[in-house]
Amino acid sequence: MTPFAALHHRPGRPLLLPNAWDHASAAALAAAGHPAIGTTSLGVAAAAGLPDGAAATRAETVRLARRLGRGGFLLSVDAESGFSDDPGEVAALAVELAQAGAVGINLEDGRADGTLAPVAVHAAKVAAVKAAVPELFVNARTDTYWCGQDDPEPETLGRLDAYRRAGADGVFVPGLAEPAAIARLVGAVGVPLNILLTPTGPGLAELAGLGVARVSLGSLLYRSALAAAVATAAAVAAGEPVGAVPGYAEVQALNER
Amino acid sequence: MTPFAALHHRPGRPLLLPNAWDHASAAALAAAGHPAIGTTSLGVAAAAGLPDGAAATRAETVRLARRLGRGGFLLSVDAESGFSDDPGEVAALAVELAQAGAVGINLEDGRADGTLAPVAVHAAKVAAVKAAVPELFVNARTDTYWCGQDDPEPETLGRLDAYRRAGADGVFVPGLAEPAAIARLVGAVGVPLNILLTPTGPGLAELAGLGVARVSLGSLLYRSALAAAVATAAAVAAGEPVGAVPGYAEVQALNER
Repeated sequence: MTPFAALHHRPGRPLLLPNAWDHASAAALAAAGHPAIGTTSLGVAAAAGLPDGAAATRAETVRLARRLGRGGFLLSVDAESGFSDDPGEVAALAVELAQAGAVGINLEDGRADGTLAPVAVHAAKVAAVKAAVPELFVNARTDTYWCGQDDPEPETLGRLDAYRRAGADGVFVPGLAEPAAIARLVGAVGVPLNILLTPTGPGLAELAGLGVARVSLGSLLYRSALAAAVATAAAVAAGEPVGAVPGYAEVQALNER
Repeated sequence: MTPFAALHHRPGRPLLLPNAWDHASAAALAAAGHPAIGTTSLGVAAAAGLPDGAAATRAETVRLARRLGRGGFLLSVDAESGFSDDPGEVAALAVELAQAGAVGINLEDGRADGTLAPVAVHAAKVAAVKAAVPELFVNARTDTYWCGQDDPEPETLGRLDAYRRAGADGVFVPGLAEPAAIARLVGAVGVPLNILLTPTGPGLAELAGLGVARVSLGSLLYRSALAAAVATAAAVAAGEPVGAVPGYAEVQALNER
């Protein structure tokens, strides 16, 4: 088991995976003690002025992985759908990311139009990636809870089982926040379950108690960063005090991490 | 006079120029009502994992200008020293930035080793840029107050006069925060004076009263963004509430601005 995979197998101690969008945010999170850092596809897309979840940011995703892949932390890359429905192309992306230093990848079955890719299409991507880069931790994500179904649980169970059988090392169900449903999935899926933390949903301790193996923050940190920038400018305009921030030298030093 | 230059000629109403580091931060600041947006060289460098002020980020600076130059706001680019001591190369950079849509540029005389470029070298860059792109607002920055001199004021006055004579549309003295010294410079320089706001120095209203024409925030917003990201991750880890942040859809929509 790789060191990154091992972080998913600590009962009661889920991996809290914060998501960075650039070098300094990753380095600052690592400096704050996080052993593993994810990326946020929304942050990567928004930073570039491109839409998220629309297969528009392959180049930006690889560029960011190259910036972060030797950073002294374990890097997992949010690669949307793999930016292709061709398993060979997704496997080639995974090879590029692993060569950049990534030890994990997220692959989602949601599409830009709000529909889900066929199960077999997504499972084939997972299988192709595992065949090409067996040591890469593949976190297979299903977007069933974001697709507006009345009862997404049966579809979710079916998809997660298919992705596990295709070789996924872990599975991810963003949008799921109901504790009993989370507990049922933990008991059913047979691989580590990743849940997206939301400010209105269960906190880290409750998710740990439910058996969740990984808690990721998605775009939350990027969105809080944007909010802070706008709020700080507004405070200056209003003549109000500005909160404590790291100094110039502290940020400048992050490039050496 | 260009619309951007006109924002520097409103007695008692300085231009508050917030500094963005990527597309979404610029779009969010514009959405908050700022008519003009600068960039922050520290933010651009730190985002890429490169040192600031070391002429290492020419490509990243141009790429960001291309992302922001048609964004429905007035864009001024922090171009460090122009990434060269050859006036022709700096003029070529200015042409690229103007073609990307920038209406202003910052050029600094500070060097990575903490010394100042010779006055004539920096004045030649200003002159070359104005000859190549007359409509581009050139904000000539001197780093005299960051170079550890006992009394930087005489050197500052000499440099700003040389840069004005070379064609600078405005001048910028970061590190200067003493009100009486600011007032003396305003009276002496003959072009709009830009001051860097610092949390411990005079606020916007006081700077307005001193006759400052432009107040920029430098890397403050980027640093506050990083601080917010790290603090939000720490709050989640501690089971504490997370502050209000914009939603996914709100950030996703910024790419269309």
